[in-house]
Amino acid sequence: MASVHVEGPSEKALLRAITRFADVLDDSAVVTEDAVAEGHDPYAFDGGRDHQPSAILYPSTVEQVQQVVKIADAEGIPLWVVSRGKNLGYGGMAPRVSGSVVVNLSRMNRILEVNDTMCYALVEPGVTFFDLYNYVRENDLKVWTSVPGLGWGSVVGNTLERGFGYTAYGDHQMQQCGLEVVLADGEIIRTGMGANANSAAWQLYKPGFGPSLDGLFQQSNLGIVTKMGLWMMPRPERFVSVEAKIESEDTLSQLVETLRPLMVDGTISGLATIRSALHLIAKLTTRKQLWSGAGGVPDDVVQSARSKYGVGGWNLSFGLYGAACVVQARLDVACRALEKLPGIELSFQDYDGADVSEETVAPKDLHRAGIPNMLPLRAMDWAGKNGGTLAFAPVSPTTGADAKAQYDMIRRYVREYGFDYYGSFNVSTRHMNHVLQIFFDRDSPRDLEALAAMMPRMMDEAADKGYSEYRAHLSFMDDVSDGFTFNKNALRGVIERLKDVLDPKGIISPGKQGIWPSLMVSRAKKGTEEL
Amino acid sequence: MASVHVEGPSEKALLRAITRFADVLDDSAVVTEDAVAEGHDPYAFDGGRDHQPSAILYPSTVEQVQQVVKIADAEGIPLWVVSRGKNLGYGGMAPRVSGSVVVNLSRMNRILEVNDTMCYALVEPGVTFFDLYNYVRENDLKVWTSVPGLGWGSVVGNTLERGFGYTAYGDHQMQQCGLEVVLADGEIIRTGMGANANSAAWQLYKPGFGPSLDGLFQQSNLGIVTKMGLWMMPRPERFVSVEAKIESEDTLSQLVETLRPLMVDGTISGLATIRSALHLIAKLTTRKQLWSGAGGVPDDVVQSARSKYGVGGWNLSFGLYGAACVVQARLDVACRALEKLPGIELSFQDYDGADVSEETVAPKDLHRAGIPNMLPLRAMDWAGKNGGTLAFAPVSPTTGADAKAQYDMIRRYVREYGFDYYGSFNVSTRHMNHVLQIFFDRDSPRDLEALAAMMPRMMDEAADKGYSEYRAHLSFMDDVSDGFTFNKNALRGVIERLKDVLDPKGIISPGKQGIWPSLMVSRAKKGTEEL
Repeated sequence: MASVHVEGPSEKALLRAITRFADVLDDSAVVTEDAVAEGHDPYAFDGGRDHQPSAILYPSTVEQVQQVVKIADAEGIPLWVVSRGKNLGYGGMAPRVSGSVVVNLSRMNRILEVNDTMCYALVEPGVTFFDLYNYVRENDLKVWTSVPGLGWGSVVGNTLERGFGYTAYGDHQMQQCGLEVVLADGEIIRTGMGANANSAAWQLYKPGFGPSLDGLFQQSNLGIVTKMGLWMMPRPERFVSVEAKIESEDTLSQLVETLRPLMVDGTISGLATIRSALHLIAKLTTRKQLWSGAGGVPDDVVQSARSKYGVGGWNLSFGLYGAACVVQARLDVACRALEKLPGIELSFQDYDGADVSEETVAPKDLHRAGIPNMLPLRAMDWAGKNGGTLAFAPVSPTTGADAKAQYDMIRRYVREYGFDYYGSFNVSTRHMNHVLQIFFDRDSPRDLEALAAMMPRMMDEAADKGYSEYRAHLSFMDDVSDGFTFNKNALRGVIERLKDVLDPKGIISPGKQGIWPSLMVSRAKKGTEEL
Repeated sequence: MASVHVEGPSEKALLRAITRFADVLDDSAVVTEDAVAEGHDPYAFDGGRDHQPSAILYPSTVEQVQQVVKIADAEGIPLWVVSRGKNLGYGGMAPRVSGSVVVNLSRMNRILEVNDTMCYALVEPGVTFFDLYNYVRENDLKVWTSVPGLGWGSVVGNTLERGFGYTAYGDHQMQQCGLEVVLADGEIIRTGMGANANSAAWQLYKPGFGPSLDGLFQQSNLGIVTKMGLWMMPRPERFVSVEAKIESEDTLSQLVETLRPLMVDGTISGLATIRSALHLIAKLTTRKQLWSGAGGVPDDVVQSARSKYGVGGWNLSFGLYGAACVVQARLDVACRALEKLPGIELSFQDYDGADVSEETVAPKDLHRAGIPNMLPLRAMDWAGKNGGTLAFAPVSPTTGADAKAQYDMIRRYVREYGFDYYGSFNVSTRHMNHVLQIFFDRDSPRDLEALAAMMPRMMDEAADKGYSEYRAHLSFMDDVSDGFTFNKNALRGVIERLKDVLDPKGIISPGKQGIWPSLMVSRAKKGTEEL
């Protein structure tokens, strides 16, 4: 595997384009001098020199986005489009190709509608989870938001990148219904029922008539999403937050085997999360207080911290939402199954759905109550004052054997390279996202070297075993994409053919998720000819 | 609105292609002489001359499908691809363009896997609902099928065409996970996690990495699906079939308003169906016994038949599936809400999920128990010995006001043109499919003329009011597509650009759902230039 290297635009073309961008945007909407400082990869472990923007644009309207793409197309300038650029662990707003002009959509932040009769929102890409939650509260609407770890990010960005939250509506991309998209030639389309301009069902019925295009614009460089419909959970009568400590790490397989039928039959809907000991310990102490030696925190140190803070070897959590008696029945079924596990200790917190707010909900339950917050950011100091983070997030079947195989494999790597196992399994119905959050010290050459050595090996082994990642940091997009080898990466070849027809000059986010215009790399066409 | 007319292939090209098809297929797999008889539109109301095949091919393997498309591409022969061609009300296996060669995939009928641990199936397009159900029963697998009205159709075809069933997994396209697709150049791709040849999650995690292409192959002519993953419902501990008669037709709005929150919060999952009186009466008597006069059955005649047979003005039905105590709680919540409606009479049938089979389930509950059958075919004689049927199926928001507006509008048309209102609302969470099933006598010139006059008017008015159809008969695909007018039908323009790049000669199912290759019609490019 080798990452594609592409030259950015020439300085001359760039200067000409920036003059033209400035003609159509507000003064404050074109950042050039401070672009590198403002738009660098915040946790770059490789210096980030391959991912530096030449300028940042902040359009405020769909029309401005259309003008920007038309100028970029005319001048051949690669853009890198972010909603708010807050996805720090995956590169923030830094572009895949150095010299790209970042298009940051944070000023397009209108909440166009929140409908609590039909339970949906229609939002622009600049709207944050905080914005949406506050809007719902201020207007006393009977719907709940579903929020990811950090509330400052874009609802649209998170959804399109397949981020997730912790309520029954936690699989955000599954809740997406209807898009407005600006294509590379400035054309605007609306997907699904939105293609009938008179339709009242744009946010209500996903497919429309004929092929459905919404999936094309997920993790995508085929267009710029300017409006998105999102289904919202009706405010539940009752919300029970369930937590369980599991004593032994060896119980992981059994736990996953017990959870799967509960997830598949909807006893638990949304996500159940299984977190490692350090995931919880990191919220209660600092790493320095635990361990000042070299390498990862040793097992016996983790064990004594577990005893001290009352943390399980694995820590399960999920929420139940709905009518009070239905929640009770589902709780009974879930408990009957979980109680059979050895060394499990269950606990509950019961809420009246109408009473749930940041004032009434325990901090540990905020995410499961759909209340945006910034608590997980505290973990950023785990590895040092100048801490950085990188995720490794392979997908696997929801089986005990797969959980154990992934855990064993990843433990082996983090031990070998001296990192902590700070992992969680986000268990859906038939698949799990296993997220290893790697914390490193950006001032430590050892950490940076170890990361650079570990990541490709770990990714290769995982992909060979069938555990592909569902998303990737800028530096690894090509590698993850390379792992999808069926019929000589034929799927990528097809997407690149679509890229070439919709965006022949390759101006929208070239290289995103390993999809390149053929003007920049010749791989796509070659791949097809070889067959 | 005007339907596109396109000339089929020349006889010379066709003969050459058929010789080549015969070289790569079995003898019995190339039908020419009987093609028109075997492949005509079974319920054509317009004579069906615009939809006659020149030949029918029955490939047995993916490799044969690849060879067929390569030959068709080389010779410029339009194909019309069907899974089994049993979607009779929408054209059966008849092609959009007369002279097309039908590719019928019924011989590709392998059930590659049914996994009752992870609850999915992997099937080829020739597999019927009967096949899948029988396989599950014979192997005593702990999953249920979800079946549409008639069990003889293809699981793949129904799912890709957005057909539906009546269990909690009734929205079939929502259960689709992972595809194998042959493109017009013979290339094979696998979508989602299947693009990693080693992945065990092809049928488990839908999106994969980067843009998701599955939606592109729904109601589509962009490729030929040769394998499909489908999530299946775990065998429930308990199944309760709920029915309700609602006395007055005027209660429709209130009924829909009562159902919506129950659907949105998952108290009822899948579909709830609201059927008109004639829908049930047609199963209990013949039309002739009711009414021998001209035009639709008069209201007073319907009313006396309702009294005689104990049928409601509207008739609600849905199923509840799952753990016994959860089903009970959901039943309690649903009943509490529904009992408030005036003139409602609720009834239940309670089943042990493990005991459910065609031997134990009442005929009225077969569909809700996921057991394939052919009962609805009986309604085909409703309008005469040589009966035909055509559906009008607009999508609308799940609101009482929309239900009433659609009902009033459609009643007006069927009254004016002398047809019966044989309608049902298939209520999902946020949208409903209102299906008017029009039965006509194929031997009656009056019926055929009335249909030809009524359909375009009704479709135009519905589309103008925002009620677009989610599928359409061959004869109306262009008209429905024309109704998606946002930005000068820009969405169609984009799909046609994708069509041109993936299938430049336009050989796969040209005209399907109004999507044409630019070689055949110039509309696509023109549309783009006009903007």
